Amino acid sequence: MRTRPLKVALLGCGVVGSEVARIMTTHADDLTQRIGAPVELAGVAVRRPSKVREGIDPALITTDATALLKRGDIDVAIEVIGGIEPARTLITTAFEHGISVVSANKALLAQDGAALHAAAEQHGLDLYYEAAVAGAIPLVRPMRESLAGDKINRVMGIVNGTTNFILDKMDSTGAGYQEALDEATALGYAEADPTADVEGYDAAAKAAILAGIAFHTRVRLDDVYREGMTEVSAADFASAKRMGCTIKLLAILERAADGESVTARVHPAMIPLTHPLASVREAYNAVFVEAEAAGRLMFYGPGAGGSPTASAVLGDLVAVCRNKLAEATGPGESAYTQLPVSPMGDVVTRYHISLDVADKPGVLAQVATTFAEHGVSIDTVRQQGRPDGVGNEASLVVVTHRAPDAALSGTVEALRKLDTVRGVASIMRVEGE
Amino acid sequence: MRTRPLKVALLGCGVVGSEVARIMTTHADDLTQRIGAPVELAGVAVRRPSKVREGIDPALITTDATALLKRGDIDVAIEVIGGIEPARTLITTAFEHGISVVSANKALLAQDGAALHAAAEQHGLDLYYEAAVAGAIPLVRPMRESLAGDKINRVMGIVNGTTNFILDKMDSTGAGYQEALDEATALGYAEADPTADVEGYDAAAKAAILAGIAFHTRVRLDDVYREGMTEVSAADFASAKRMGCTIKLLAILERAADGESVTARVHPAMIPLTHPLASVREAYNAVFVEAEAAGRLMFYGPGAGGSPTASAVLGDLVAVCRNKLAEATGPGESAYTQLPVSPMGDVVTRYHISLDVADKPGVLAQVATTFAEHGVSIDTVRQQGRPDGVGNEASLVVVTHRAPDAALSGTVEALRKLDTVRGVASIMRVEGE
Repeated sequence: MRTRPLKVALLGCGVVGSEVARIMTTHADDLTQRIGAPVELAGVAVRRPSKVREGIDPALITTDATALLKRGDIDVAIEVIGGIEPARTLITTAFEHGISVVSANKALLAQDGAALHAAAEQHGLDLYYEAAVAGAIPLVRPMRESLAGDKINRVMGIVNGTTNFILDKMDSTGAGYQEALDEATALGYAEADPTADVEGYDAAAKAAILAGIAFHTRVRLDDVYREGMTEVSAADFASAKRMGCTIKLLAILERAADGESVTARVHPAMIPLTHPLASVREAYNAVFVEAEAAGRLMFYGPGAGGSPTASAVLGDLVAVCRNKLAEATGPGESAYTQLPVSPMGDVVTRYHISLDVADKPGVLAQVATTFAEHGVSIDTVRQQGRPDGVGNEASLVVVTHRAPDAALSGTVEALRKLDTVRGVASIMRVEGE
Repeated sequence: MRTRPLKVALLGCGVVGSEVARIMTTHADDLTQRIGAPVELAGVAVRRPSKVREGIDPALITTDATALLKRGDIDVAIEVIGGIEPARTLITTAFEHGISVVSANKALLAQDGAALHAAAEQHGLDLYYEAAVAGAIPLVRPMRESLAGDKINRVMGIVNGTTNFILDKMDSTGAGYQEALDEATALGYAEADPTADVEGYDAAAKAAILAGIAFHTRVRLDDVYREGMTEVSAADFASAKRMGCTIKLLAILERAADGESVTARVHPAMIPLTHPLASVREAYNAVFVEAEAAGRLMFYGPGAGGSPTASAVLGDLVAVCRNKLAEATGPGESAYTQLPVSPMGDVVTRYHISLDVADKPGVLAQVATTFAEHGVSIDTVRQQGRPDGVGNEASLVVVTHRAPDAALSGTVEALRKLDTVRGVASIMRVEGE
């Protein structure tokens, strides 16, 4: 076994970074055995050097990340700063100085993954990023390596813990969105500004990264259709329950039936209680993968948190260090299929639509005609007086068969214009059947 | 990209082998892109050359596997023969001729893994075996690589599809063991001789392999405590339901609390319905992993079948071919911790015990005293007249707190000797809490 240590620069020392440093110290012997050489924390770049960092030698702390990367003895950099800059420039600097990179940065990889992967390949270096998607859940490596001989047709995942916590609370307690969000915030599951989570931006970034791996095609963040979950109501959960469903915020990546294009989207959806994703509770993440030969697989675990994310980072660190020793690199980005990403209108799905309608004869016929005119076939209709007892009004719940999203949304637009339709109370897609 | 193809010898062409050959042909372009060089099926060793094999060039078929390996141009051998011989000799021959190996052979790896891994390492070659445990579920690679920077403390898995199908039927329909087994046989989920599955031999082989990976320690098949599930009854399921549990045949691998030893066992156990493993239905497999930093992870998917197993084999083929091109090898066997494997008596668990007792005062006191004398603390007792209405007898269901298995089985032995105890109707461990 080699005795000269591999040297690691840690860029960022927040919740994840400090946990990475801690494990590198406490589990140094294990890491040495698994890598085949000792691994040494050679420097830690931070913004606030005065902050007390327990267990980290103060001599390692620097505010000059660039100088740390340029000093000439670093083998691997771990980027756990997050955000676009300075992370992007630092990763590029690392590659220019022969340093392989482990990153947990989903925003950066979703936005600039292509350029960063190209830079890694150009310099013959590794860029590993297991921690960027679904925290500790081994997902990037299984999809990229274990399923490398298979063909993935569909990925459907709960990839944001905050929103899953909120939706699970709404499901189990009957709470409304705001009440459940307040509880998530109080318990530390939601940030003070929850926009990135509840509007689906975080999930969309992960969806873009996963779609790239699943389909060997480049999917940009802008290619991902995105709808948040702030309008999901207690009434929606009641409707879902009547259908034997629950509601989850899903990232769904699909290969078209003809195999010639892909779609990527994030939105709340009803899924049957019998689906493995339905039983994913609290802030857990899970990703369901359908592959041609392997069939239906699911990966489940904590999607965030310092320790789980550090676990994923360290798994990558071991792999990258082993590659360094072997003077090899792991599988790089694979975008050889270059399939076009189709717009949301091409996605084939089902709608669950709640309408407030005039309570008089002929309304159902009018509504049904509108669906038929748009080529959308109705699965079930449930008609009832409104629960709030407003006179002369009824609610109509329509669940459609599968149809292109464009036809479904066109139907909804037309329904809004009917004089017997007072309003569209909610629209939700139905998935997982 | 290299244009000279990597040459593959396929050893065995049954359900899995023929599917591997089919995918290698139909997805040749994808495999080329993912490996970085074309991959060519250079020979197929079979026992019965006269059998018609659709899609395989008859010129590739040979009955002389050894000659195929020795001809000098093979880069990778895929062993899907199964069983100990001739698979073991052929794998050894492959290594002696510079050929890396992908194997799906759980029996061989559980029995002779150490020698085979040593041979691979000695020759600087790869031995990959994702398909040997839990079919298509990426499990070996995630545990060996993604969690390489973490410390696995516990693995609990449903790793045999046949027995899960039988237990799921018993749970959902109230059927007895024989009736559920008959259905499994009729549907092709159980073999004519189901011994290897229902007596837990298959699960024990997988448990030995998984324990080795999880704990970086060598666990032999003989080290795995094994109990089959043929005595699980409809009454046990009724008892389980009353406790909010179901029954699964589990492979459980644990690091002792002091970290100085490990245990490995396969037996039926009650687990709470809220546990992620409880909702694993039909012939699906799932493995629950608890790691120090990552937390609770679960991997779910089809555990057997030609296509899923072929998917796992091909994922390994891509990795091994990439390693060949890079003149490197993947992570080999890691047994550096060399922890001792403790006997079943040291396992700390809970018992659910059904006793047939005389229906008279003082019985409960006598039974409770017996538990106390063995240092086993009782959690709950439920006393009731026997459902078959036999006079003068009652049943007593005792659920214990956690205690060493030796103390629990000692208690049961002592209970059997009490004159008020007519018989011990069933004993089942309770896990997953």
